[in-house]
Amino acid sequence: MRILIVGASGIVGRAVLGELGARHDIVTAGRSSGDLRVDITHTESIHAMYEQAGPLDAVVAACGKVKFAPLSALAAADYGIGLQDKLMGQVNLVLIGMHHVMPGGSFTLTSGLLDHDPVLQGSSASMVNGALNAWVRAAAIELPNALRLNAVSPGVILEAMAGYAPFFRGFEPVPAARAARAYAKSVEGAQTGQVYQVS
Amino acid sequence: MRILIVGASGIVGRAVLGELGARHDIVTAGRSSGDLRVDITHTESIHAMYEQAGPLDAVVAACGKVKFAPLSALAAADYGIGLQDKLMGQVNLVLIGMHHVMPGGSFTLTSGLLDHDPVLQGSSASMVNGALNAWVRAAAIELPNALRLNAVSPGVILEAMAGYAPFFRGFEPVPAARAARAYAKSVEGAQTGQVYQVS
Repeated sequence: MRILIVGASGIVGRAVLGELGARHDIVTAGRSSGDLRVDITHTESIHAMYEQAGPLDAVVAACGKVKFAPLSALAAADYGIGLQDKLMGQVNLVLIGMHHVMPGGSFTLTSGLLDHDPVLQGSSASMVNGALNAWVRAAAIELPNALRLNAVSPGVILEAMAGYAPFFRGFEPVPAARAARAYAKSVEGAQTGQVYQVS
Repeated sequence: MRILIVGASGIVGRAVLGELGARHDIVTAGRSSGDLRVDITHTESIHAMYEQAGPLDAVVAACGKVKFAPLSALAAADYGIGLQDKLMGQVNLVLIGMHHVMPGGSFTLTSGLLDHDPVLQGSSASMVNGALNAWVRAAAIELPNALRLNAVSPGVILEAMAGYAPFFRGFEPVPAARAARAYAKSVEGAQTGQVYQVS
């Protein structure tokens, strides 16, 4: 398969590259590194990426920003960061990509556990993850050309604990390589409309 | 209790008014009718509503628009309608209202079943409902002054089937009065961070 990984230089993206790169042809994309450059918050940038990418059998999105801050410090504009970046950035990778990915191909997005297991300062991430999981279930039943769509919802990633530990005390960290296997399950399996929780 | 119902003229809002009006002091608000007028897509309008509302013990939101359309016809701007109106409109009722509602008071928002039980043309509603349910779970653990926050997620409402039936074939309709009892459970009970599914 020829697989595009958006966010390939991130901790999860690198692990997905390690998992899928062993047996597939990978095209990497990212904001500031990779075979292709893309700003997922701009639809024109996503269009341009797909034009350059050539034929694809699968797209993996391991990208997207949200703001962590106390509820009392989050205004509508702060929630807008997560809605425009991690949510609509990934959604637009599908809405635009469904015209570029080969029939029978797949999209795999990244959410996270905060939709059902919230932490202090994480309300924007919770919102975005809940939106992504629900959208994946809904959009999967409407995709044309037998395209498939799943989400991977990993717990806090072990290799990211240097930065995330203060937000996730008591959470069992998930090695990135373990999360990466759920992406392979989505890309190389046949299921659609699923949210793979990796804990 | 003194309870503000936003969207009081809608099918669900009227039923909540019927349920809670029998034993509480109700202030109604809506886009074009009610004791107070509010456009939930503008934070200044929400601020003005709360200034006029006086002391409140509870806020019920039974309001919010989303666009129904096939996945292939929904662009980012179309998803933006639901994100700005039903999602951030209700979220802003809480973010702004938490400075106006009395300590120990509550907020009750409205989502819907499409986050886990999707239909054709409903992907924007699914996204918004998933976002609302997850945000409620997360924001509830950070609200100050013992404020509580829950969501009611009703099935398709019986009295709305004239318009909604083509989208919801085979779904068991829920009478608005049955949904309204879940709002009473949220307002008059003591739970927080809950999503009450009414089916």
